[in-house]
Amino acid sequence: MEQARPSAAKIVEFINGICPISQETMHFMQQHIFPLSLKKGQYLLQPGEICGHYYYINKGILRSYIKYGSKDITVWINPENEITTSIRSMTRQQPSDEYIQAVEDCELFALSFEAVREMYERFPDMNQFARILLELYYAETEERVYIGRIPNANARYAHFIQSRPELVNRIPLKYVASYLGITLETLSRLRAKQARKTVTSKTKSP
Amino acid sequence: MEQARPSAAKIVEFINGICPISQETMHFMQQHIFPLSLKKGQYLLQPGEICGHYYYINKGILRSYIKYGSKDITVWINPENEITTSIRSMTRQQPSDEYIQAVEDCELFALSFEAVREMYERFPDMNQFARILLELYYAETEERVYIGRIPNANARYAHFIQSRPELVNRIPLKYVASYLGITLETLSRLRAKQARKTVTSKTKSP
Repeated sequence: MEQARPSAAKIVEFINGICPISQETMHFMQQHIFPLSLKKGQYLLQPGEICGHYYYINKGILRSYIKYGSKDITVWINPENEITTSIRSMTRQQPSDEYIQAVEDCELFALSFEAVREMYERFPDMNQFARILLELYYAETEERVYIGRIPNANARYAHFIQSRPELVNRIPLKYVASYLGITLETLSRLRAKQARKTVTSKTKSP
Repeated sequence: MEQARPSAAKIVEFINGICPISQETMHFMQQHIFPLSLKKGQYLLQPGEICGHYYYINKGILRSYIKYGSKDITVWINPENEITTSIRSMTRQQPSDEYIQAVEDCELFALSFEAVREMYERFPDMNQFARILLELYYAETEERVYIGRIPNANARYAHFIQSRPELVNRIPLKYVASYLGITLETLSRLRAKQARKTVTSKTKSP
């Protein structure tokens, strides 16, 4: 069996963590993925384009946002070791209404829609892998629907730092604010409050 | 081949509309689904319970909501010819934090998590069917994340009546308001504005 390219070793690990696939399926995937680099601020997708790839984030952070008037509505923020795409544009093969932008310099691996479709036809275990992956991402998105609806900014911020602690200090605050649907001023106030709480609890601990 | 039970004919049609499955797979499903009736107001799932079934809505409307203090946050509203479940509770096999409630008298068909899991193991085409179904529902949920984040109640209501026109006059207004994240008063104001617009455009048309 052919050795996995060292750079793609993390994808193999990622896939096996979701649902192991056969060597044949993995081999086809390895033959069809290609690396892609993005500089901080660059776009992976812009409105009007049809999303044609799934991306594995090997390094860096991507965010998706939709322009609403002069406002950015940040819909998701994904760091390393996640698969990402514009699921609506991809599934419906329709022009995207969202931007996908690099928040940091990114190293990605891309797999085209056509290659994935061929895999679904030729390799039944690819359907199983994708079914499990989609269950996980769908469940996570259903949670985002609810979190975004919580009418209390403090509770939304608390959920964010609890569920995504690794992101808090890596993302510009304006993106965190846009993700939480609050102004930068409100976010600063929440962070100050949170910091005071941490200091107080540290002082109080034995 | 065994004839599908008449009552389940709509499920067969629904499935074939997504991705046809083999007779063997369909037969297993037909053997394991069971009908279930709910009276208006009754619960299919309550917080603390682990969701154990997928449901096909043959008749009626279900809504999911989460209690936030004294508020209901309605997360989704599903009418006939949809598959539904608590995807987070089901996928993670964790106690639910959501209520699933009948908005009208409902006729459902249920398929247990265990039966579905057995189907995934025995029938590869079930993974294909579920993968396509999950893509559709995941894309729809990703859209709900965005719609819920639009900072303009009028635009959220306009999207609701455009995307779900069949539901507008079937659901109590308090649930529509809860789904849109607005008060009943704001919803009434938006509806009055909308009605005036309709009358004006009718008067103007030749």
